Amino acid sequence: MSNSRITGQVRVVGAGLLGASIGHALVGRGVDVILEDASPSNLTLAIDYGAGRRSDAADSPSLVIVAVPPDVTATTVAAELSRWPDALVTDVASVKGTVLDSLVAARVPIDRYLGSHPMAGRERGGAIAARADLFLGRPWVIAEHEFTTGAQLRAIEDLALDLGAVPLTMTAAEHDRGVALVSHVPQVVSSLLARRLAQAPENAISLTGQGLRDTTRIAASNPELWVQILGANAPAVHAQLSAYRDDLDTVLSALADPDAPGARRAIAETLAGGNAGVARIPGKHGQAKQFSQLVVMVDDRPGELARLLTEIGELGVNMEDLRLEHSPGAEIGLAEIAVLPEVEESLITQLTARGWKIAGALA
Amino acid sequence: MSNSRITGQVRVVGAGLLGASIGHALVGRGVDVILEDASPSNLTLAIDYGAGRRSDAADSPSLVIVAVPPDVTATTVAAELSRWPDALVTDVASVKGTVLDSLVAARVPIDRYLGSHPMAGRERGGAIAARADLFLGRPWVIAEHEFTTGAQLRAIEDLALDLGAVPLTMTAAEHDRGVALVSHVPQVVSSLLARRLAQAPENAISLTGQGLRDTTRIAASNPELWVQILGANAPAVHAQLSAYRDDLDTVLSALADPDAPGARRAIAETLAGGNAGVARIPGKHGQAKQFSQLVVMVDDRPGELARLLTEIGELGVNMEDLRLEHSPGAEIGLAEIAVLPEVEESLITQLTARGWKIAGALA
Repeated sequence: MSNSRITGQVRVVGAGLLGASIGHALVGRGVDVILEDASPSNLTLAIDYGAGRRSDAADSPSLVIVAVPPDVTATTVAAELSRWPDALVTDVASVKGTVLDSLVAARVPIDRYLGSHPMAGRERGGAIAARADLFLGRPWVIAEHEFTTGAQLRAIEDLALDLGAVPLTMTAAEHDRGVALVSHVPQVVSSLLARRLAQAPENAISLTGQGLRDTTRIAASNPELWVQILGANAPAVHAQLSAYRDDLDTVLSALADPDAPGARRAIAETLAGGNAGVARIPGKHGQAKQFSQLVVMVDDRPGELARLLTEIGELGVNMEDLRLEHSPGAEIGLAEIAVLPEVEESLITQLTARGWKIAGALA
Repeated sequence: MSNSRITGQVRVVGAGLLGASIGHALVGRGVDVILEDASPSNLTLAIDYGAGRRSDAADSPSLVIVAVPPDVTATTVAAELSRWPDALVTDVASVKGTVLDSLVAARVPIDRYLGSHPMAGRERGGAIAARADLFLGRPWVIAEHEFTTGAQLRAIEDLALDLGAVPLTMTAAEHDRGVALVSHVPQVVSSLLARRLAQAPENAISLTGQGLRDTTRIAASNPELWVQILGANAPAVHAQLSAYRDDLDTVLSALADPDAPGARRAIAETLAGGNAGVARIPGKHGQAKQFSQLVVMVDDRPGELARLLTEIGELGVNMEDLRLEHSPGAEIGLAEIAVLPEVEESLITQLTARGWKIAGALA
């Protein structure tokens, strides 16, 4: 029995991480999932793991999900549209304009094509890494266009909801500008910053605090994948990054002569602009962040952090956020905890009374 | 009774966050701490909180710690050197070259001056926010110069160790280049990135993931403070940031025509350079990071995260790092846990068997 919103057969083309994860989730909901992959070995593996079944002559999918690499997405979508004249075809590529443009340029009718982009992944790819819960709580963008019907939108929304994702509808151009801003430009900015460290003296690296760790974390991303993504979304990334470069040049001019008239103000406006921008990022449950941070020392032994969190729970305090940092060379951890400002001082008092040490935050 | 490494009276000039925190820690170790502040009200407050005592005619400090705002540090150091001809004088300003240069330019003998920089702070300043454990596990840079003696170095090392900090010795120029790289340039880069968000459409912001959150977290920093810091360290920041801008221009050229010969390679080299740089950042206990990440769904109820960590402890798995993320608009939290790669798959299996849901990582 099916307990899914979507009805009918679903054909998934590409049994990698995303395709196989979609397969697992839909099979779990009782959907008849047909898997396809250019690699017979990969296909068999995904089927062995339970992500779907092999295609047969009686197939009649109502929905086709193309989950192949970005550079072959458009041609695969075109082939599927032609092969299944009654099916809605979607894809999961991370840049949407290039797929749509390629189809239009090839004169493929797009009235049954509706692209999407689930914003989820894992560090490792492939069918073995696939998980039914990969999409839980993640945004799933639906890239509507001029021929998209309400029924088609609802079909992809149902798919997203069946997978536990949060559907968001926008145009391909809006999506591509959006991911340029919130994902692709941050990747470039972070990689460029981390690159400065490659030749830095050891004693400079020894001063590293949480600020540098945070700003460079995503610089560990896979270069091959990101060359594809940045290449596919080059115009939107270039536009955002050019504006960033212009602002950077303003700061550089100010730093070249920091006592010149207007120099301090130029630096201050950059920093204040950053304050305004970061305040727009949604925090827990969509609120803007406005929590107090406190840093608690935690002995580096199994169970110590759990004990701290248990005691914070016993004190009736809801923790809004948590991250661990490690002191350079020290056998202690520092748990940075975000709480509502009104409970901060009483939490400090009570944790101190229970023997916990509260350290300062490191910029 | 004193249980400190440092001996003799310690005079702390400036009873703000850093000065009062130093006072609390040293008083706790039995040291005779003399407090001074330009504001009588602030001084009384810090003394009321137990950070030290008022000065009197019999004072004879062996160590003076200047903890006043950056723009009055050099003149205060000069005055203290003159007033206490037998004392070693240090300061805690976050840029070291400007203090030393100002003293030399004013023909102040620097043979009893040895600057330092404790890399600690809190979001809130002032004597009320002061904490004896502010410096625990934090780097404490000692900025040696040509006249520094071994005894002076040991005296400031003893101070750092008494406060629980990790002393690191380097020149003022090395320090200033180091903090430009690991702190000041990341601040500018993050502020400039966050500034792009100020005018962004709401549906772009709705796509925000952990990558943007991490890269822009420090963009929430105080602009007034950072204008002072960036102004004081302008030459070192300008040099690093110019090199960053040159790399950025290379990426911009490549994105302007991503199919031109060499364009993909230029982008790939930037990303690979970022990989190499971030690999140098020390992780837990100074190791470079090479952990597997897994993301576990946690119901947003008090005690749930503590229960997860307790169970991970029961499974005998040592958690190398932890951070919480929140799904946009969803009443669930996602705990991103770093573990050694060899335990990842068995941890996933065992947590799944205990009913936990493992989600995908969000780039």
